[in-house]
Amino acid sequence: MPELSESALIERYFRAAGAPRSDVVLGIGDDAAVVTVPAGSELVVTTDTLVAGVHFPAGTPAAAIGHRALAVNLSDLAATGARPAWALLALTLPEALPAWLEEFAAGFAALAREHRVALIGGDTTRGPLCISVQLLGLVPVGEALRRSGAHAGDALLVSGTPGDAAAGLALEQGRLSAPDAARAYLRERFLLPSPRVALGERLRGYASACIDVSDGLLGDAGKLAAASTLAAQIELERLPLSDALRSVLPGEGAAELALCGGDDYELCFAVPEARLAALLMELPPERWNYTRIGTLSAGSGTRVQRGGTVMEFSHSGYQHFG
Amino acid sequence: MPELSESALIERYFRAAGAPRSDVVLGIGDDAAVVTVPAGSELVVTTDTLVAGVHFPAGTPAAAIGHRALAVNLSDLAATGARPAWALLALTLPEALPAWLEEFAAGFAALAREHRVALIGGDTTRGPLCISVQLLGLVPVGEALRRSGAHAGDALLVSGTPGDAAAGLALEQGRLSAPDAARAYLRERFLLPSPRVALGERLRGYASACIDVSDGLLGDAGKLAAASTLAAQIELERLPLSDALRSVLPGEGAAELALCGGDDYELCFAVPEARLAALLMELPPERWNYTRIGTLSAGSGTRVQRGGTVMEFSHSGYQHFG
Repeated sequence: MPELSESALIERYFRAAGAPRSDVVLGIGDDAAVVTVPAGSELVVTTDTLVAGVHFPAGTPAAAIGHRALAVNLSDLAATGARPAWALLALTLPEALPAWLEEFAAGFAALAREHRVALIGGDTTRGPLCISVQLLGLVPVGEALRRSGAHAGDALLVSGTPGDAAAGLALEQGRLSAPDAARAYLRERFLLPSPRVALGERLRGYASACIDVSDGLLGDAGKLAAASTLAAQIELERLPLSDALRSVLPGEGAAELALCGGDDYELCFAVPEARLAALLMELPPERWNYTRIGTLSAGSGTRVQRGGTVMEFSHSGYQHFG
Repeated sequence: MPELSESALIERYFRAAGAPRSDVVLGIGDDAAVVTVPAGSELVVTTDTLVAGVHFPAGTPAAAIGHRALAVNLSDLAATGARPAWALLALTLPEALPAWLEEFAAGFAALAREHRVALIGGDTTRGPLCISVQLLGLVPVGEALRRSGAHAGDALLVSGTPGDAAAGLALEQGRLSAPDAARAYLRERFLLPSPRVALGERLRGYASACIDVSDGLLGDAGKLAAASTLAAQIELERLPLSDALRSVLPGEGAAELALCGGDDYELCFAVPEARLAALLMELPPERWNYTRIGTLSAGSGTRVQRGGTVMEFSHSGYQHFG
């Protein structure tokens, strides 16, 4: 199998791996890309890296890796309420295998087009498999959501059904077993996360603070509370658990995975009580898929309660160095 | 040695690793950063990755790695004539060693402050040592330099003294030997490249095309010529060779390294004959450190001539996959 030169490789697999956008002045192929930022918008920028064996198991399909590399960044951007626009891809890989690259690019491109993201540049290097994506987006001036900003009394909410992805990973790794239907659902929830970009944008008018749930709901809710110098109370009974997750983990295991599992790529956000009714009306929870799980209050720390009793959890969010 | 959590690590070593800027609305520590792009400017974006053992030898000082990670991106931006503004750092490393991180951050920070670059975000991951930097800059609307744009008859120029860095790497790797003074100079040229940011900005009024020389002058000049659908002629006698390089590589070895060596982080650019006199007057070559090395003409390919005779070179620019 002939190897490709770096420029031929980028040209062949990645030139069409994003959406076309008229605000791209100069795209892939030069030393840097040039884009136009519209007046009235601030620029929102994030980067996230995937390392083989750390962020996905060896043997993960290339299309899923391509999808995930963009999805984790879309999720970060969603937490600010920004609309994604442009991405750069820094791809380090041991060898340039055409079949792998084609699948990877296809997985990346499908999600990029769904969110109208143009791939405007990148870098391809030989080395251990490692993928860094940089994502740029736009938000109206002064309207970006952040982790800080919540007030005591604000409701705490989460999108989706946390814990599914962690169960999917456990299934992939053979640490858990499940009937076929639940297995397929949970596996997809791990392999192909759906970043909540549209929800993030709509939350700009309602949320007082927002964070991306990627390292476990308990830890990430705690980060939001800490950034807002508040305490978070989560009510265990309110946790939105999928039927599939309940079926593979009876008892408290499902709730524990929902709180501590990681890889959810959902949004955890605070909404002032005064805006809650409007939110529920304008963004119906059954359509937008979010749930109130607790409340923020004066103080610090994160407490999980069941029927008024505070529960202890032995581990919080996943830490790469900790 | 206690390990640090990801957030504590970022906080401790990288919060102060850039210049303060008033256009940073939200910096390190949230899901994404928010910045203000001034009216009348376009946004220029680039990313470049360093992998241990590929882009620098094992044992390279951490400060030099931090410097290089930013320098290679500054060089890409310089080629567009943009002014650097904000950076993100995606750092993958096998273990969080405080001494290494401190030195790395110091090397990065010194260069960032020199160029008024704010570090606005990043990501720290456990894995094989790999550093991706994303750099964002600003250029007046419509004025970005690119590889294409040169015309037949334009002069071809290069900044600095190419080949020094490649000689420095060969010295580091014990493939070459040199007296102490030459060794120190060449080693520094490899370890601490000086991206030509100020020159790039000033070239906006003069250059018809520009490229960053990182993979070897011959190959990169060829890319500029190809993007402009022209041929490049380089005159061997005109190559600016440092005394140190000549002293360690007598004969044609110095010129060969200058043409094919890589890691220069200089600029290769085209200037229309009609603008050349103004360039030489406004940006005196002895102060701005650049040299005319040849001419662009109709046709394709890159030819190196010595006294009118075309020379053959067995290899061109460095290719990561080729």
